[in-house]
Amino acid sequence: MASVRDIVVSAAINLLSALTFLLAFAFLRLQPINDRVYFPKWYQKGTRASPTASGGFLKNKFVNLNFKTYLKFWNWMPAALRMPEAELIDHAGLDSAVYVRIYLLGLKIFVPITILAFAVLVPVNWTGSTLDDIKDLTYSDIDKLSISNVPSGSLRLVAHVVMAYVVTLWTCYVLYKEYQIVTKKRLQFLASENRRPDQFTVLVRNVPSENDESVSENVEHFFCVNHPDHYLTHQVVYDANRLARMVGRKKILQNWLTYYETKFERNPKKRPRTKTGLWGMWGKSVDAIDYYSAQIKKINEYEAEEREKLMNDPEAIIPAAFVSFKSRWGAAVCAQTQQSSDQSLWLTEWAPEPRDVYWNNLATPFVELNVKRILASLAMFCLTFFFMIPIAFVQSLASLDGIIKVLPFLEPLMEQEAVMSVVQGFLPGIALKIFLALLPEIIASMSRIEGHASLSSLDRRSAEKYHFFLLVNVFFGSIITGAAFEQLHKFLNQAPSEIPRTVGVAIPMKATFFITYIMVDGWAGIAAEILRLVPLITYHFKNTFLVKTEYDREQAMDPGTVDFSTSEPQIQLYFLLGLVYSVVTPFILPFIIVFFAFSYLVFRHQIINVYDQKYESGAAFWPDVHRRVIIGLIISQLLLLGLLSTKSALQSTPLLLVLPVLTIAFDRFCKGRFESAFVKFPLQEAMKKDTEERATEPNLNLKAYLQDAYVHPVFKDIDMNRPAALDDEENSPLVETSSRKSSEESGSPGIIVDTVIDEIASYYI
Amino acid sequence: MASVRDIVVSAAINLLSALTFLLAFAFLRLQPINDRVYFPKWYQKGTRASPTASGGFLKNKFVNLNFKTYLKFWNWMPAALRMPEAELIDHAGLDSAVYVRIYLLGLKIFVPITILAFAVLVPVNWTGSTLDDIKDLTYSDIDKLSISNVPSGSLRLVAHVVMAYVVTLWTCYVLYKEYQIVTKKRLQFLASENRRPDQFTVLVRNVPSENDESVSENVEHFFCVNHPDHYLTHQVVYDANRLARMVGRKKILQNWLTYYETKFERNPKKRPRTKTGLWGMWGKSVDAIDYYSAQIKKINEYEAEEREKLMNDPEAIIPAAFVSFKSRWGAAVCAQTQQSSDQSLWLTEWAPEPRDVYWNNLATPFVELNVKRILASLAMFCLTFFFMIPIAFVQSLASLDGIIKVLPFLEPLMEQEAVMSVVQGFLPGIALKIFLALLPEIIASMSRIEGHASLSSLDRRSAEKYHFFLLVNVFFGSIITGAAFEQLHKFLNQAPSEIPRTVGVAIPMKATFFITYIMVDGWAGIAAEILRLVPLITYHFKNTFLVKTEYDREQAMDPGTVDFSTSEPQIQLYFLLGLVYSVVTPFILPFIIVFFAFSYLVFRHQIINVYDQKYESGAAFWPDVHRRVIIGLIISQLLLLGLLSTKSALQSTPLLLVLPVLTIAFDRFCKGRFESAFVKFPLQEAMKKDTEERATEPNLNLKAYLQDAYVHPVFKDIDMNRPAALDDEENSPLVETSSRKSSEESGSPGIIVDTVIDEIASYYI
Repeated sequence: MASVRDIVVSAAINLLSALTFLLAFAFLRLQPINDRVYFPKWYQKGTRASPTASGGFLKNKFVNLNFKTYLKFWNWMPAALRMPEAELIDHAGLDSAVYVRIYLLGLKIFVPITILAFAVLVPVNWTGSTLDDIKDLTYSDIDKLSISNVPSGSLRLVAHVVMAYVVTLWTCYVLYKEYQIVTKKRLQFLASENRRPDQFTVLVRNVPSENDESVSENVEHFFCVNHPDHYLTHQVVYDANRLARMVGRKKILQNWLTYYETKFERNPKKRPRTKTGLWGMWGKSVDAIDYYSAQIKKINEYEAEEREKLMNDPEAIIPAAFVSFKSRWGAAVCAQTQQSSDQSLWLTEWAPEPRDVYWNNLATPFVELNVKRILASLAMFCLTFFFMIPIAFVQSLASLDGIIKVLPFLEPLMEQEAVMSVVQGFLPGIALKIFLALLPEIIASMSRIEGHASLSSLDRRSAEKYHFFLLVNVFFGSIITGAAFEQLHKFLNQAPSEIPRTVGVAIPMKATFFITYIMVDGWAGIAAEILRLVPLITYHFKNTFLVKTEYDREQAMDPGTVDFSTSEPQIQLYFLLGLVYSVVTPFILPFIIVFFAFSYLVFRHQIINVYDQKYESGAAFWPDVHRRVIIGLIISQLLLLGLLSTKSALQSTPLLLVLPVLTIAFDRFCKGRFESAFVKFPLQEAMKKDTEERATEPNLNLKAYLQDAYVHPVFKDIDMNRPAALDDEENSPLVETSSRKSSEESGSPGIIVDTVIDEIASYYI
Repeated sequence: MASVRDIVVSAAINLLSALTFLLAFAFLRLQPINDRVYFPKWYQKGTRASPTASGGFLKNKFVNLNFKTYLKFWNWMPAALRMPEAELIDHAGLDSAVYVRIYLLGLKIFVPITILAFAVLVPVNWTGSTLDDIKDLTYSDIDKLSISNVPSGSLRLVAHVVMAYVVTLWTCYVLYKEYQIVTKKRLQFLASENRRPDQFTVLVRNVPSENDESVSENVEHFFCVNHPDHYLTHQVVYDANRLARMVGRKKILQNWLTYYETKFERNPKKRPRTKTGLWGMWGKSVDAIDYYSAQIKKINEYEAEEREKLMNDPEAIIPAAFVSFKSRWGAAVCAQTQQSSDQSLWLTEWAPEPRDVYWNNLATPFVELNVKRILASLAMFCLTFFFMIPIAFVQSLASLDGIIKVLPFLEPLMEQEAVMSVVQGFLPGIALKIFLALLPEIIASMSRIEGHASLSSLDRRSAEKYHFFLLVNVFFGSIITGAAFEQLHKFLNQAPSEIPRTVGVAIPMKATFFITYIMVDGWAGIAAEILRLVPLITYHFKNTFLVKTEYDREQAMDPGTVDFSTSEPQIQLYFLLGLVYSVVTPFILPFIIVFFAFSYLVFRHQIINVYDQKYESGAAFWPDVHRRVIIGLIISQLLLLGLLSTKSALQSTPLLLVLPVLTIAFDRFCKGRFESAFVKFPLQEAMKKDTEERATEPNLNLKAYLQDAYVHPVFKDIDMNRPAALDDEENSPLVETSSRKSSEESGSPGIIVDTVIDEIASYYI
């Protein structure tokens, strides 16, 4: 076990590396050439057009030679904290502003607990002196600060039980307060929002098919009859997935063409050549520019054909529609009520905002949806508990003997020492690394299968799955060594009252491991986050090879987003660690506080200067965050119960059993009190906004405003400059949508980098 | 263990006692004097006014001397089956008609399973011949028909696994079909219903208090603003619980007065006297008629005062209201949507029909409601697992030594042999018996604490609790002997995979016990049900002492109701037994089929001729019935899994583990498909009915119709003959309400019988 000295050394190393990252960031962000990497948000907002335009003191376009600015290189930190929250919400959206509040929540919970724990528990533990008496056992000074140092059956354990109560009550209090604040902010946000198409629109799925009516006619008739005073218009949904793929493919080809054209311009003597096979690696060698021009021409023809087909084929319309109402009240009513007596038909839900729609999922029928959801949960269960089995299999293949057995002709090569050491030391690890790198994508595709209609709900579902995975494999996996399926087997064959005991006993012993984990994964990870190494390289790569015009440069800039689906579950791990160790080994708490404080600072800076939003859900994720902290709290209570029952403190069991019951009761109370604000839209608010709007804009042409709000983005791309009656407010998110589409999913030069990474990966697997 | 012979004897005895009950019923029902006990439903309906009026062939008013009718005394059975279901729904309501379908569901599930089990499993088990080889073990022929007779690890067990699949699939199929049918019936019923106040009305709870506005004004303003096109009127709720108690008390006094007046009339020489103390047993002796007249006069004054106070005191209005809308559509919208951004205010739900309202609970505020629900579940948990502790304590007190210790002066009495044997043999048992008799009432009061606003939801919640109690204490309690809290302790300290094994192994050994249980509790119980011994005695008692006019006789008749909260959980026990034993000991199945068939017959007869409805919920209980059968199915699958794992058939485990997963998936599918029809009212249906009504009755004065629909019954009682604009349709349920109130809760002569029973009970405890 590590001593305090080891921890200090490790902390110093990690602090140093974090500092290096920070210094690098402080230096790089001042270079005008990197301005679009570190301040893309301002370009997106339109307040900055070029690096020189901003401050005025930057004379050189590439390198900052004004050394005075270097002296103030720390000033991003106070700058990040200075923006008031109201302005932050306005600037970066409620989702981002509430996201950084998760870190603040961590601080609010753990700072008082840490102070109390160090004032009370640490002295109690330190003077427990059990470990001093055991001479033959190696123990560290950290263990002397933990509950391990308290003798079994000692009266000192009362302090720990009281502390457990304090932690629970304080955490619940802070959670309640925070839920209240976030709910208020959400309602304020919804109330203060400008007019948006989704406020008037409901997504209707599973429109029944009538023989003599088209989907559009059917929808119109149904809503004219059943919402006669409120129905305004509707927009059918085309099955444009094929077309979207074509558009995406065309953009990739376009990028390659641009790449070769740039290459040719710079070196006009030699026309670039490419191969027709996979990723330009195999096959016939051809002239690259001609080849890609021809390819683009061909795909243009296909695309036109497909567009033609979509517009004329009634089969291309899927049985779903965006139905718009004359008032927010009408839409709120339709979204919250059941329409038909057959519950599998005419399912209504709030329409996501246009850029948040996940178009591929709109067509899934009800029964299929049910089956898919069950399959997805089964798959997630298997993934969590049995993912080690295929990886172990790949690892056995990737061993020296395995490779020689499958590919015997490599034997001479393998016998060289350098190759051998690489294969033995590197290959088995890389299978796991690749799996873990791909895990968010695997989880995201599972969520997509479940058929949710918006990107925000997909992210929330993915976060839930990822949290489960981390809980089982990182938290329990680290405490009880052994693969998850072995744990599962053990747990199934053990009494339920035994499980907290087994795990609880192992808890104090793992404190040093988790301290190291917090420093490596937490501190250094966050410092790396602010440096944005990958976007930095990508941007300069694109800038060199693909950027011709200022518009291209705009496109090459990748602000990225807060990736809720992976980062939130990771934060939850720190909450869990803090709650579990607050009573057992309080020494871990300062490390967690540093993590939360540092992350808060960094993410506040990032959402102000860097990240762009994919969508705005109005902090719809908060109930999930709340619930997961509660789960962490209950786990911590059960583990403490198990731990104390091995300390001959059985009389504390009933006292401690009260805690999870209280916590669950608290959770249900909060659910009843706040949750529906995140699911439903109260009629009172809707009516208020409607009335206001009628008073201020009596002549608003709502129908024209909503006409094309929910058109599939592939149709938007071509009609960008049509003279439709769209006002600015609406048009801007749509442009963003398409730019997001192009930069993220299919069309950006970034795809080349991704392709290269994929190629490399494919060689190793 | 009992042999087949013992079972046959027991079956014969039980059949005989059931037959005796049936014969007694067949005889008694033909006596005109009992007509109001066995055919009250027809009197209630108004189709029968006196016993002689019905057939015409009954000449004598008291005894049936027409011996021809005795020859046809079995004809109630075909008569009970003859009424088609549509007519039954019309005659007795959907609740009752669907209630008897639960028995039909039992037949549909178990008849095919029994045939298959006897064709396949019984031969397989019989020829297994394990038990023949074990000479020193006592076993019965029934065990030779069970899975115990199949050797461990035998290939014959494949038949059992296949059978488990067949049982699951068939049960799910029947459940699905039945859910579909009931859903359709419910929707048809709701669509075909006449105009009822609750179709237009929403119950609003937690109206916020405004300083300058009364509750009534506040409600009016809120709904005028937020439902401007649909709001019609509203009715505030008075806190009339105190007044209701006074009215109830007055009716009891009135009954006593009538009783003594009748006594005096029959024996005019001696004025009856009573004592002023508890139950007329202790205290000063006074003239009974004068005493009760004075008491009634006094309470009349109090009542008038209380009425005055209620009408003028704004504090007497509770923050809840029945809000009515101009259309069903408007009410459906309000009931299904969230009104305010504060989720603890303006909570809306469908108003129960007027006679279904549970007035006492309307005032409970939101936070209190949450706390109370949690407390109620905790209390239920304790009641289920720890009820034996206080009973064991009472039993120890009720033992010979216990009594002598507490009341030493009784020692000489206790030493007499006759007294001793009574105390030893009778008293310990009676504590448990009294507890079990009071259990439904205890459970009902727990449900009342939870704050539900309608009698139907109270019944559903009570059924859920009672089912849990029966499951733990009757089913598991019989299989694993020992008190429930011992089981709980055992289960907590055992691996989860061990539990099905422990229970599963005990299953085949308990088959004979459960066969006896089915015959005693099931067969004889149902036969006693049709005889209606208690209402028979009560009626004649009242008839003798209290009935003066024909109207009094009407009041003395107690049709009773189907007591869903206790009888449905008992049926579920038979479902559970059938499902558990269908694969293990199929010999039990015919007994269950007889139970279901017999019950179906009897209850169909009862709901046609006897029972009156307390309320009509439109079969809202079906999702609960469905879910509980699913729970039984899953328990049976897990127990079979445990049993087979001890039969060296471990390879069957994964195959059998699929079953619960499938079943849960099926349940979730059904939930998504059907459940909302039982919770929500689709807008399409509402609109259809509204449109129809507008076409047929364009000049309907809905406001007048709804004006007084939701007035507390105590206010109804006095204004019965006011000239309000009520039409017949509405008025009739209200009369019924008050008659129900009077006969059931507080006012009927039945209270005397209850009082006497209470007195007797109080002597024994």
